[in-house]
Amino acid sequence: MNFIYFATTNEGKRQEASQILGIRVEGIKLDAPEIQSLDVNEVAHFKARHYFDQLKHPLFVEDTALIFNALNGLPGPYIRDMSEALGNEGLIKLLAGFADRSARAVSVLVYIDGEGKEHIFEGVVGGTIADSVRGEGGFGWDPIFIPAGSSKTFGEMDRTEKNKISMRKLALEKMAAFLYT
Amino acid sequence: MNFIYFATTNEGKRQEASQILGIRVEGIKLDAPEIQSLDVNEVAHFKARHYFDQLKHPLFVEDTALIFNALNGLPGPYIRDMSEALGNEGLIKLLAGFADRSARAVSVLVYIDGEGKEHIFEGVVGGTIADSVRGEGGFGWDPIFIPAGSSKTFGEMDRTEKNKISMRKLALEKMAAFLYT
Repeated sequence: MNFIYFATTNEGKRQEASQILGIRVEGIKLDAPEIQSLDVNEVAHFKARHYFDQLKHPLFVEDTALIFNALNGLPGPYIRDMSEALGNEGLIKLLAGFADRSARAVSVLVYIDGEGKEHIFEGVVGGTIADSVRGEGGFGWDPIFIPAGSSKTFGEMDRTEKNKISMRKLALEKMAAFLYT
Repeated sequence: MNFIYFATTNEGKRQEASQILGIRVEGIKLDAPEIQSLDVNEVAHFKARHYFDQLKHPLFVEDTALIFNALNGLPGPYIRDMSEALGNEGLIKLLAGFADRSARAVSVLVYIDGEGKEHIFEGVVGGTIADSVRGEGGFGWDPIFIPAGSSKTFGEMDRTEKNKISMRKLALEKMAAFLYT
């Protein structure tokens, strides 16, 4: 293939993917339903199938979940809506009744090749939820997630620093390894 | 029409609907995606369209949301998944950091008539979230929701008592009024 579609309109994400995958990546956004499920793989799979049915060309979609271990999978794929509803302060408050502040940030890539075959790549970063909102960088819940091994939240890192250790990067690297072996 | 489809496999719900609507109701379950959205109307609308595309016959779907006012719309339509992940004790704990325990239980019926036209009926019951799980009756989150004007949770009521004041009953009565005027 001489290019691959990526279901995103985010130019930063598109460039990052193109760099790591070493291939031309075209951003595209179709009107595809995002289904209710606590399983981020299932959400991404459903979306990817929808895209492939329309595009009939190699593509991948990315979906992110933020899992609070105390909340048994939540917010999970609902992090976008829950983040919008509650803001970062509200997300922190959800944990007020729980002792465990550990969390996992998960990025799932579903790649569908030219024959319609599906391949899943997952990047996981462990960490903890900060007890206050910290940092102006990043977006969404970046200011409340402290990746393991760091004392800073994603929101306190600049983009280069964050992208070096992000769950999306780990997933993209797995996909690159798959494409070139 | 001499009967209407209701997207449910729950025999109790089917009977209740048939009684209130005064028409034959056939339960049916299709594989329809439930989309991510904090707007329960949108979730029900999407499902209803999917059913109508396949059935081409008058039908209605019902969707329920439980809204914690402190959580700005949440759990909302995600109550089923959040309830499964956390259990009732966990749902109560989510509010540990918030003073406001008020809530709304919402039932939305989307009815699509023989011409494919859509009608929405909403039943809302205000109330509060109990500070402990109370009662063995009902199902799901019934044991933590105390409807306004009562000292009991839905879980402490028998089915007849609950159905008399339920949000689904209010929505069904609105639909009945619409069908017969």
